[in-house]
Amino acid sequence: MPHVVIIGCGFGGLAAARELAGADVRITMIDRSNHHLFQPLLYQVATAGLSAPAISAPIRAILSEQRNLTTLMAAVTAIDVVARTVTLEDGASIAYDHLIVAAGSTHSYFGRDEWAQLAPGLKTLEDAFEIRKRILMAFEYAERETDARRRQEWLTFTVIGGGATGVEMAGTLVEIARHTLSGEFRNIDPHSARVVLIEGSDRILGAYPPDLSEKARDQLQKLGVDVRTGSRVVHIDEKCVRYANFDGEQTLASRTVIWSAGVAASPLGKSLGVELDRAGRVPVSAELNIAGRDDVYVIGDLAAAQSDGKPVPGVSPAAKQMGRVAARNIKHRIAGKPTEAFAYQDYGSLATIGRKAAIAMVGKLKFSGYPAWLFWLFVHVYFLIGFRNRIMVMSDWAWAYLTFKRSARVISSTMRERAEEGHKLPLE
Amino acid sequence: MPHVVIIGCGFGGLAAARELAGADVRITMIDRSNHHLFQPLLYQVATAGLSAPAISAPIRAILSEQRNLTTLMAAVTAIDVVARTVTLEDGASIAYDHLIVAAGSTHSYFGRDEWAQLAPGLKTLEDAFEIRKRILMAFEYAERETDARRRQEWLTFTVIGGGATGVEMAGTLVEIARHTLSGEFRNIDPHSARVVLIEGSDRILGAYPPDLSEKARDQLQKLGVDVRTGSRVVHIDEKCVRYANFDGEQTLASRTVIWSAGVAASPLGKSLGVELDRAGRVPVSAELNIAGRDDVYVIGDLAAAQSDGKPVPGVSPAAKQMGRVAARNIKHRIAGKPTEAFAYQDYGSLATIGRKAAIAMVGKLKFSGYPAWLFWLFVHVYFLIGFRNRIMVMSDWAWAYLTFKRSARVISSTMRERAEEGHKLPLE
Repeated sequence: MPHVVIIGCGFGGLAAARELAGADVRITMIDRSNHHLFQPLLYQVATAGLSAPAISAPIRAILSEQRNLTTLMAAVTAIDVVARTVTLEDGASIAYDHLIVAAGSTHSYFGRDEWAQLAPGLKTLEDAFEIRKRILMAFEYAERETDARRRQEWLTFTVIGGGATGVEMAGTLVEIARHTLSGEFRNIDPHSARVVLIEGSDRILGAYPPDLSEKARDQLQKLGVDVRTGSRVVHIDEKCVRYANFDGEQTLASRTVIWSAGVAASPLGKSLGVELDRAGRVPVSAELNIAGRDDVYVIGDLAAAQSDGKPVPGVSPAAKQMGRVAARNIKHRIAGKPTEAFAYQDYGSLATIGRKAAIAMVGKLKFSGYPAWLFWLFVHVYFLIGFRNRIMVMSDWAWAYLTFKRSARVISSTMRERAEEGHKLPLE
Repeated sequence: MPHVVIIGCGFGGLAAARELAGADVRITMIDRSNHHLFQPLLYQVATAGLSAPAISAPIRAILSEQRNLTTLMAAVTAIDVVARTVTLEDGASIAYDHLIVAAGSTHSYFGRDEWAQLAPGLKTLEDAFEIRKRILMAFEYAERETDARRRQEWLTFTVIGGGATGVEMAGTLVEIARHTLSGEFRNIDPHSARVVLIEGSDRILGAYPPDLSEKARDQLQKLGVDVRTGSRVVHIDEKCVRYANFDGEQTLASRTVIWSAGVAASPLGKSLGVELDRAGRVPVSAELNIAGRDDVYVIGDLAAAQSDGKPVPGVSPAAKQMGRVAARNIKHRIAGKPTEAFAYQDYGSLATIGRKAAIAMVGKLKFSGYPAWLFWLFVHVYFLIGFRNRIMVMSDWAWAYLTFKRSARVISSTMRERAEEGHKLPLE
């Protein structure tokens, strides 16, 4: 029976696996983590609105009914398209007949990797816990700080990058400061927290038309976010962020910095032996194959795919659609039937900004504000994997909406552990 | 206004703080973590049944309405009862007029501290995440292991200590193996997992009468736990546990070991300048004061208190009751009124063993099995802090009960991170 190996159980890999259910193939799903992650809601874990299990599910559990599939929790370190093998982190080698590479993307610090420690990005649950910890600890340190200047450093939050994640983070941070933590501190007023969103280009949410970008900016500013477009970050350290704009260089004293500016394709693309595009993505044919290898498919964020002559955006619906086409092409080839070409079906775009604030684009229809936010809510709950998670998320959100409370405000490390690990204390 | 400092926001410290609501005092609640933990359900987090937010709540949020109280997230490193100050991990010093020490207890490895890494105990959320990770990873490693002997090492789980936590852990581990993971693996059969409970004394749940211990043992064995009493652990390493019993020394090949054998009082007791009892606890007067200091109270697991001439057990109802008495005695002393003596009110004891299995003792009434389990369920949901958490826990449990699924089976670290951190891989 032909052996199909799928690397990565994100939206693309999972869709491919499901499309192959019942097919006469043996499938191995390899993922370095034990769970599928509903990434569009990861920022809610980072901002203590949802617990990790609400937006993630064990891959084994999701795919347990699919009898032709084996799940392997392992990290792939290399792919050999000539020998047709995949190498794992422990040196083990797995042979494939058909390979789907759905390894996704990671943060890019544009060559400034030293910023990774100072300004964590948001891709994994581990990232979300780290950001949650930093946000909640910043308020704790501010409460203990006696110097007014340093206190304001702790109460200033900077989000770098005005894409969807950056906008969501900034909008939610304001809500935490103004509502969630309201009344819980005695020495500081969480309302005095400042949230700054820094974007290099001249508008936020650049993937949307300018008028929607403008609406998003208005809504963000109304919520209380300080939006600074046309500002390129040139320096980050423990205490400040420096950025350059048309006024010259500005310094922003801020202790908590979150990175959502750059995305890089998974380094796994390099081992495929084909030339990558500028963003490190793998060019694929209409059938989603790499050049000269019709047994190797690349899908999702790692693929530089075209549809109708236009590049396919790195969004989850595109990944799912590619996963299904790649899986079907494997079945077609096994059956000796003609393959199909990938055509991206754009159902629209949606970005949430904060409580009752969002922008949406569905076909020719553009809308924003409360209706867009309700639409966003509906779509996200609907697409959440698994009935159970949907209920969990809805009840968490209903509770948060009514009470302004956030249910996942727990930091698992203690103050002493932090001190022992050399974390900076406020009274330095 | 007199300044009351409370160290530790467990059951005792929280009860004391609440008793002082509205009193003419200024209270500082110091805890090294940011949350109050409902410890009786911590084993459910460790076994992936509940998420962390379901059994913990931010101390600030719980106590935000109490206007005479300030919360400080800090670790106390020393107490000076002469200068009447408390020292924090950053060197800061806080003066008190009245002090309540409710610092609780920690694991004890009976002088074998090197076992802490090999056999983690269960006291904090961090501990619970570590144990959850080890349990879930053991099945992953077993799935990848090709050698039958090593595979069985990964599928053997050892719980050391047959107290309440050990019994709960062992019972739940069997349920995970036999039900939750059923059908999700292709190379291993999780049913073949073995759970061994090792207890040094001649019966488990030694705090209960012998007939209930016997019932608990029967129920555990019926669930599938291999119970070995009269067995003293003499050696632990990555691959095995060695214990001595009347047959001599036995070696058990087991990769996952959980420690619930020993409890030691918080080391903070040492800085109070009084002689401690053998378990490191602080002897207190009927008013819960330490010798010669009627401004210093010790409550909860850290206190060696007497009631009716008998030692008060280290259980949460006792901690709560002590917290209330200590708080009232502070109010009495401020008002110049006579103090009250602590009298422990024993409402009974309850231990859960697994699905539909428990033992209970209420007054003279003893019962076990399904009725005891239902009673356990009711009591634990009822006493969970906060209406919100109660709903979360109930819905999680109802779901788990009906489907055998466990909702929190997420490991946040990836296989590559584990490899980089030098975790042992199955194919060593």
